[in-house]
Amino acid sequence: MTDIKTLQQQISAEIDKLQFGTEPKELYEPISYIMSLGGKRMRPLLVLLGYLLKEENAAAVVRQALAVEVFHNFTLMHDDIMDEAPLRRGQPTVHEKWNSTVAILSGDTMLVKAYDLLLEINPKLLPEAIRLFNQTAVEVCEGQQIDMNFEAESQVSVDAYINMIRLKTAVLLGFSLEYGALMAGMAEPGRKQLYEVGVQMGVGFQLMDDLLDVYADQAKFGKQVGGDIISNKKTFLLIKALELATGKEKEALDSWLEKTDFDSTEKVEAVTAIYDQLGIRELTTNLMNSYFDKGFELLDRLDARPEGKELLAGFAAQLMKREK
Amino acid sequence: MTDIKTLQQQISAEIDKLQFGTEPKELYEPISYIMSLGGKRMRPLLVLLGYLLKEENAAAVVRQALAVEVFHNFTLMHDDIMDEAPLRRGQPTVHEKWNSTVAILSGDTMLVKAYDLLLEINPKLLPEAIRLFNQTAVEVCEGQQIDMNFEAESQVSVDAYINMIRLKTAVLLGFSLEYGALMAGMAEPGRKQLYEVGVQMGVGFQLMDDLLDVYADQAKFGKQVGGDIISNKKTFLLIKALELATGKEKEALDSWLEKTDFDSTEKVEAVTAIYDQLGIRELTTNLMNSYFDKGFELLDRLDARPEGKELLAGFAAQLMKREK
Repeated sequence: MTDIKTLQQQISAEIDKLQFGTEPKELYEPISYIMSLGGKRMRPLLVLLGYLLKEENAAAVVRQALAVEVFHNFTLMHDDIMDEAPLRRGQPTVHEKWNSTVAILSGDTMLVKAYDLLLEINPKLLPEAIRLFNQTAVEVCEGQQIDMNFEAESQVSVDAYINMIRLKTAVLLGFSLEYGALMAGMAEPGRKQLYEVGVQMGVGFQLMDDLLDVYADQAKFGKQVGGDIISNKKTFLLIKALELATGKEKEALDSWLEKTDFDSTEKVEAVTAIYDQLGIRELTTNLMNSYFDKGFELLDRLDARPEGKELLAGFAAQLMKREK
Repeated sequence: MTDIKTLQQQISAEIDKLQFGTEPKELYEPISYIMSLGGKRMRPLLVLLGYLLKEENAAAVVRQALAVEVFHNFTLMHDDIMDEAPLRRGQPTVHEKWNSTVAILSGDTMLVKAYDLLLEINPKLLPEAIRLFNQTAVEVCEGQQIDMNFEAESQVSVDAYINMIRLKTAVLLGFSLEYGALMAGMAEPGRKQLYEVGVQMGVGFQLMDDLLDVYADQAKFGKQVGGDIISNKKTFLLIKALELATGKEKEALDSWLEKTDFDSTEKVEAVTAIYDQLGIRELTTNLMNSYFDKGFELLDRLDARPEGKELLAGFAAQLMKREK
């Protein structure tokens, strides 16, 4: 039986082999650039883990699995324009290194190239794969637009927030697992259950991201701890705090949100203290664990190869322990 | 036998029936908006004309034909951001009426929706249809990037220009015809020949656009005559004039290109006079006609229904007589 590290090496080797085109170079260099910036390559790994729930060896579908990684990087390239982000994985974003025109067009090209990789699966499975991929791709766009809308809204409900992260992040993890299972020939009821495993875990992981941004150990965390607090980002923690705070805490929280001139360390400490008083850390942890539990439960009940289930559960458990 | 007007009415009725989604409205309203702005709907018409080269009635593929119209409008939405265009068909562009974020994301969604429409064809034909569509889509992006690059280049060769308009405009017309023929079951040699008919005519039509922008009758022309001259747009006419001009004409042309403060009417008259002295109008007309001739010749030799060939030739001839 294979292990996660071997699968990751296969994915990495296959990414190195990808060739998208050469001319005009303004269109293709940004694609190679963003694909070379690294990342956890979690989505193609989930495709392979989905495949291994029914098949013993995933070598035959590593290239096809990259469709989701190319798609994911397309969304990053376009999201970075919208967010006016200067850096991506510590390197200049494409619209900064080149310009917005290049980032729009290279991103468009990547979306088409994702379909090119999908096209390499068994033709009999293609209509279903594209149908599922299209639905996922549209939902990811919906999630990004809803996230953009949140920036201008004064109040966001917990339900609306969970729906947003489900669309923006979780459905692609669900699709990745289902796509792998589809290539392995798993029937629809099992595939749908597996999709839901990915969605539940995806929501859990996004809540974990929100939590780590405030409570991570700065020595181990890749970014600045408290970044979301500094930028007033509407994460689960802030939304829940705004819902629960009353009296003095409410006043203090509102005042920090309104301040345009402040010391970052001071703001992070003050808002974190409010979160602590409201029990936000525990509330977030509980909600996060309820999503993980649901995911593990669905996986446990899935009719699939025990070795495959163990591998996927092990990977999820490993991700749950991350500190960055 | 059907006629062009009937086909256009079928297309228009089918476009009215399209439903893309509702929430978030910032994602879907711009799609309905740009699709409602009208236009000649030439691309889906070419799909139907391609289909009628082998089949008698195109009613069964009108909806599938809209894939190319949705794709075309996606490119317009993104191109308008890059060109910072304020108007599209006389109405505010999406990035002006909403914002750039909305225009990027709605455009991305439209590209996915184009694949959704492709998905409605006979599943057996899907791998080939998507393969051809992907290649075309990538080439259109390449053409747009090359066009963007031209803006910053002092010298562009005629060959480079023709290659750019082939990619940016002509290949989609070629694909539209081939896609229709594919759905009708035409075999590959004929389909490839038909694709080339579309490409040749597409290059011809773009040269015609360049020509009309300078020599159209203002009373009949939808835009300002001379718009390309005013903005120093590198059209075939300007590229050829820069290649041919010497001595005083060269000096005068360079001087008009460098001026930032000028009277528009005066510049249009002066540059047009230089074009006239260099015989640019005739050179462009000859080149344009050579592309049309090649297209008609390939169509004439095509093994297909005579009524279908007549209908397509008639439509092309009608387009060649347009004055706007």
